[in-house]
Amino acid sequence: MLEYHDVTVRVRYAETDQMGVVYHSNYLIWYEVGRVELMRALGFEYKQMEIQDDTFIVVADVHCRYHQPARYDELLTVRTRILEAKTRTLKFGYELFRQPDNKLLATGHTIHVACNRAGHVTHFPEKYKQAFLKIAGQNANRSHA
Amino acid sequence: MLEYHDVTVRVRYAETDQMGVVYHSNYLIWYEVGRVELMRALGFEYKQMEIQDDTFIVVADVHCRYHQPARYDELLTVRTRILEAKTRTLKFGYELFRQPDNKLLATGHTIHVACNRAGHVTHFPEKYKQAFLKIAGQNANRSHA
Amino acid sequence: MLEYHDVTVRVRYAETDQMGVVYHSNYLIWYEVGRVELMRALGFEYKQMEIQDDTFIVVADVHCRYHQPARYDELLTVRTRILEAKTRTLKFGYELFRQPDNKLLATGHTIHVACNRAGHVTHFPEKYKQAFLKIAGQNANRSHA
Amino acid sequence: MLEYHDVTVRVRYAETDQMGVVYHSNYLIWYEVGRVELMRALGFEYKQMEIQDDTFIVVADVHCRYHQPARYDELLTVRTRILEAKTRTLKFGYELFRQPDNKLLATGHTIHVACNRAGHVTHFPEKYKQAFLKIAGQNANRSHA
Repeated sequence: MLEYHDVTVRVRYAETDQMGVVYHSNYLIWYEVGRVELMRALGFEYKQMEIQDDTFIVVADVHCRYHQPARYDELLTVRTRILEAKTRTLKFGYELFRQPDNKLLATGHTIHVACNRAGHVTHFPEKYKQAFLKIAGQNANRSHA
Repeated sequence: MLEYHDVTVRVRYAETDQMGVVYHSNYLIWYEVGRVELMRALGFEYKQMEIQDDTFIVVADVHCRYHQPARYDELLTVRTRILEAKTRTLKFGYELFRQPDNKLLATGHTIHVACNRAGHVTHFPEKYKQAFLKIAGQNANRSHA
Repeated sequence: MLEYHDVTVRVRYAETDQMGVVYHSNYLIWYEVGRVELMRALGFEYKQMEIQDDTFIVVADVHCRYHQPARYDELLTVRTRILEAKTRTLKFGYELFRQPDNKLLATGHTIHVACNRAGHVTHFPEKYKQAFLKIAGQNANRSHA
Repeated sequence: MLEYHDVTVRVRYAETDQMGVVYHSNYLIWYEVGRVELMRALGFEYKQMEIQDDTFIVVADVHCRYHQPARYDELLTVRTRILEAKTRTLKFGYELFRQPDNKLLATGHTIHVACNRAGHVTHFPEKYKQAFLKIAGQNANRSHA
């Protein structure tokens, strides 16, 4: 069973800043790519979650620790886990590695709340909840990350 | 009568790239700030145009020429004009100046189409059209920009 | 003596996403604006810190909690504090308020390490350190934020 | 011989705006991905062009026409050509297609000037120039795009 999901991103010039490294807010966008692709690997399109199920995964909390800078044109692995799944909330964990030396560049987590289109807190539909719980169980000992 | 509108933006670190200058796509965002503030100076909130009048100014065409690089922390003047106003389309012109030496850094234009929420082409509501036409008249000889 | 510094930003269209609210990574960019303006209020230009003093404030850690969504065209107050100042590190705290109702939208912190152009950890030059310590003293009881 | 190069990008949530479509400045970033990957297909890493050859491809002019909106999570093909190659300048052309129906979403071009690290105009090193000229020859009849 899926414990984590890896996706590769290549650093764009637009993502660098005048220090010659990636500007720090862009890591959050890669984390977004990571969780969307994790969901796709679980058989879900986040797009359909919004359209068909009126369920939006709203970001409530973000943490990121920067260990080593990411640089232009590098290939990076975004490793994403589900650390906690509850009726209304979801916690993802992230590790960012540089390819090919597998150096750990950053770690982080995001906490999300299920909301409907009107912005009210809701439950995750059952099919998502079951899938999230299964994968979260694989990472139970990491939920403090 | 208003011929153009000036607004000041300060360059953010996030907007620079590893060349040590502003990444070129960010100029388009400053142009957005320019046209929104031009509309505000005309007495309109673009936000209300979307909400109350179901009219969205969709970007159909963008051109930008970069004369001199903008750099971190500089104060810039975005000078915005309406070059052409028609029933369904609007053309804005932009000049970007560095303060305080008034050096011209960039010029550009954007062409927009009035659409409703459903994405269909529509007319600009009369109150906007009249205001746009007045200011466009001031810039008639510049519409080739 | 300065305990915190307030700066106003207006939400740009480019900063929104298809949920109709601001995309979460943009808050980090406003926090950058907040700390740069706090330094300016202390009499320092961060730009000169890089150029003249070969000292870069590298982001090592970011946390942001999202209480209420920020929306297009809103005027926001970024309130920035220095929570901790050490020889080589600096911790800023942030509160983001919506104007004019003063609703708290987000809180956060960033931790920074002083590095030189070569990317090696260094000391903050004395003039900065003294100023940072003074203002950090005002916020001693908040350093857990 | 290579006439154009195709690369796929997937639309990120961060790239959408509250109209529910991609914010227009992001197309320029995809065009950047397109020209970097075209150069890689020619056997060059743009990164090394900066580091080893002290040659930066500075953007001097951008045009983009938006035919149909790109939307969240779509897979897009960025088709990039070299339209003109001269001693000091380079013109790229772009077509953006939505997969899988191959709908044309946008077209555009960028003009670039070769500069060294100090920001002065320079010549493209011979190895690049020869490669650029070859591919530009394939697109001679399109140089008006």
